[in-house]
Amino acid sequence: MASLTVEPTIASVRGFNVAGVHAGLKADGALDMTLITSEQPCTAAGVFTTNLMKAAPVLLDMERLGTTQVGYRAVAINTKCANACTGERGLANARQMAQQTADVLGCDADQIFVMSTGVIGTHLPMDKIVNGISLAAESLGQDWTAAAHGIMTTDTRPKMASVVVETSRGRYTVAGIAKGAGMIAPNMATMLSVIVTDVGLTPAQANHYLQASAETTFNRIVVDGDMSTNDTLLLLANGASGVTITPELDSQFCDAVHRVSLALAQAIVRDGEGATKFITLHVTGAESDSSARQIGNAIATSPLVKTAFYGGDSNWGRIVAAAGRSGVSFDAESVKLSIAAGETFESALLLFENEMPTSYQETSAAAIMASSAVYVKLQVGAGQGEATLYTCDLSHDYVSINGHYRS
Amino acid sequence: MASLTVEPTIASVRGFNVAGVHAGLKADGALDMTLITSEQPCTAAGVFTTNLMKAAPVLLDMERLGTTQVGYRAVAINTKCANACTGERGLANARQMAQQTADVLGCDADQIFVMSTGVIGTHLPMDKIVNGISLAAESLGQDWTAAAHGIMTTDTRPKMASVVVETSRGRYTVAGIAKGAGMIAPNMATMLSVIVTDVGLTPAQANHYLQASAETTFNRIVVDGDMSTNDTLLLLANGASGVTITPELDSQFCDAVHRVSLALAQAIVRDGEGATKFITLHVTGAESDSSARQIGNAIATSPLVKTAFYGGDSNWGRIVAAAGRSGVSFDAESVKLSIAAGETFESALLLFENEMPTSYQETSAAAIMASSAVYVKLQVGAGQGEATLYTCDLSHDYVSINGHYRS
Repeated sequence: MASLTVEPTIASVRGFNVAGVHAGLKADGALDMTLITSEQPCTAAGVFTTNLMKAAPVLLDMERLGTTQVGYRAVAINTKCANACTGERGLANARQMAQQTADVLGCDADQIFVMSTGVIGTHLPMDKIVNGISLAAESLGQDWTAAAHGIMTTDTRPKMASVVVETSRGRYTVAGIAKGAGMIAPNMATMLSVIVTDVGLTPAQANHYLQASAETTFNRIVVDGDMSTNDTLLLLANGASGVTITPELDSQFCDAVHRVSLALAQAIVRDGEGATKFITLHVTGAESDSSARQIGNAIATSPLVKTAFYGGDSNWGRIVAAAGRSGVSFDAESVKLSIAAGETFESALLLFENEMPTSYQETSAAAIMASSAVYVKLQVGAGQGEATLYTCDLSHDYVSINGHYRS
Repeated sequence: MASLTVEPTIASVRGFNVAGVHAGLKADGALDMTLITSEQPCTAAGVFTTNLMKAAPVLLDMERLGTTQVGYRAVAINTKCANACTGERGLANARQMAQQTADVLGCDADQIFVMSTGVIGTHLPMDKIVNGISLAAESLGQDWTAAAHGIMTTDTRPKMASVVVETSRGRYTVAGIAKGAGMIAPNMATMLSVIVTDVGLTPAQANHYLQASAETTFNRIVVDGDMSTNDTLLLLANGASGVTITPELDSQFCDAVHRVSLALAQAIVRDGEGATKFITLHVTGAESDSSARQIGNAIATSPLVKTAFYGGDSNWGRIVAAAGRSGVSFDAESVKLSIAAGETFESALLLFENEMPTSYQETSAAAIMASSAVYVKLQVGAGQGEATLYTCDLSHDYVSINGHYRS
């Protein structure tokens, strides 16, 4: 099986049409709504925020998926307003957004998913939303870049990924777009993302591939540790390629979905609000994978660790200290910490073992910390549990962006 | 019983002598070591970090308190180096620091507590430490301001508090100093603090009063959610006033310790790294006090909530969203959120109830958010559980301070 290549662009996905439009939500005239449609009804699966204060579109999409998981035709997405903490009126607005999409596409409202992102606690400007859906329906095509732009909030660049796979039974594509630059924590589908494919999937397959993939990609990224009310990840499969996933195609398809998910998830971290560094955090030797993840999460959300990375300061004691307060029990004597420049463990520098600093050169550590990507490996014992997380630093710009987000 | 008045200064505490000196640890010549001594042997109690990676001085002090809890003579404290993640050599250095203090005071090393604060993962410069202890012993007296200065790291001002209590059996004093401006989370004694009193206490009493007080003061403050390897809070009681705490003096003494603790804990938050706002966060209606505290902690550590406060942006949805991801189960329909300017619930503005925003005036919310102190009340149900936490905002200066802490 040849290794799959992920592209940061999307040429086309059979049977899917998209549009990104300006509906008047963003004051600067930028694209602010996106519509993704399928000519054929799709099988779908979703992963949603575990936040108790779920936004209206999340509640609606969960309701949609609670029934058949087949027959879906489109996803309509707006920015600037999260339609969260908006009560009954918010739910009615989400339903109206779906109904309008169904009307312009000529299908039923229960075939439509909706997503919203933006400020919490304000109502959707329904006139603009309704108008935006009509606009989008008129410009459906293969402009995936516009579709990726239409869901951006504080993102500085669109996030797309695609893989084209040649099989003995034909060619298929897995492609996705995502947004999300803050309020990112590894506890659920983090942000908004839609992944589409022209293979045919059963509902059980759709669930399986999406969950397996999210677990090691979208659920492993941390920007700031906050978990949104709106996080939604959807997989839509329309079967337009004629390829279905039989056992012999299983591992390759799994890999394709994983690669697209990982590319999108990492793109979110690379474009984290104010981020200047991409950090791969590999925790090993824990008693279980979930323990390793819990330790990694404590480190990745630590403001002191994140600001040290921002400053390029090899103040690694903060990493060990964050692990120590993670709530996971481990033996302090067995802790080892190494760092390497880049996104792999090559040429790593061992900083700490046997409860004390090694005799490493400060200049070597400083050189690694100065690079735009740092790989951190923390060993906490001899267990088999491990987890890899992706995170970024905490900069002045994060504070600027979030101090005045609504203005 | 007359209400007790807390002073932000300390005149004197009978039988105690202190000094703050420059031992050469801080490059700018500022005071960097503190010695607190008692002429009479003291009863002591302590609360320590629950971080697994405990610093050497924490391990030594815990060992000291594990035996008799009586007979202590002094606390020696250094800044710039935390003596954490330093292994056997670190423990030997902590012991030597205690031994040197015992030598200059003419007592045994096991009568001495030590504390360290500063960078993790470097060894104590023992020549400077030993010299600093000698210097401090030569200048012992009642200069509590110098003592409070000698333990400062990123603190911008010294933290002191004292209460003088008149009783039918004489006058006594409870006084304390504290340091701590970052790495502050409400999960243990947070920071370094020494509280002294000239009343006589049994070990059981010392434990009781210290634990009860820490629970609603030092354990309720959040600057950044990070938990130090070195956090230590000690209570020393030398009995020099001749007053012992009998049942009729119990509640007043409890109040005195609480007020000193609260003043010090709040002073830490007010001087939080880069802090521009003091936030009182009152969570009510939870099923238990611990649930309320867990919700409060999620809010107080949320970077999005903290940056919104910094920006003076009444983006209250982030508060509700943080509560929703706290891991505590509550009914979204019963959530109510109000804010008020200042440190009490007077003239509060209700922002959110019945799952949606109230019809409040944005200008009223903005006026409250613009004040230097904000009181936030979040009701999550009809339960009896509640908790009050004290926190601050997240500013550009926090990032500047922590991006280059070691330099």
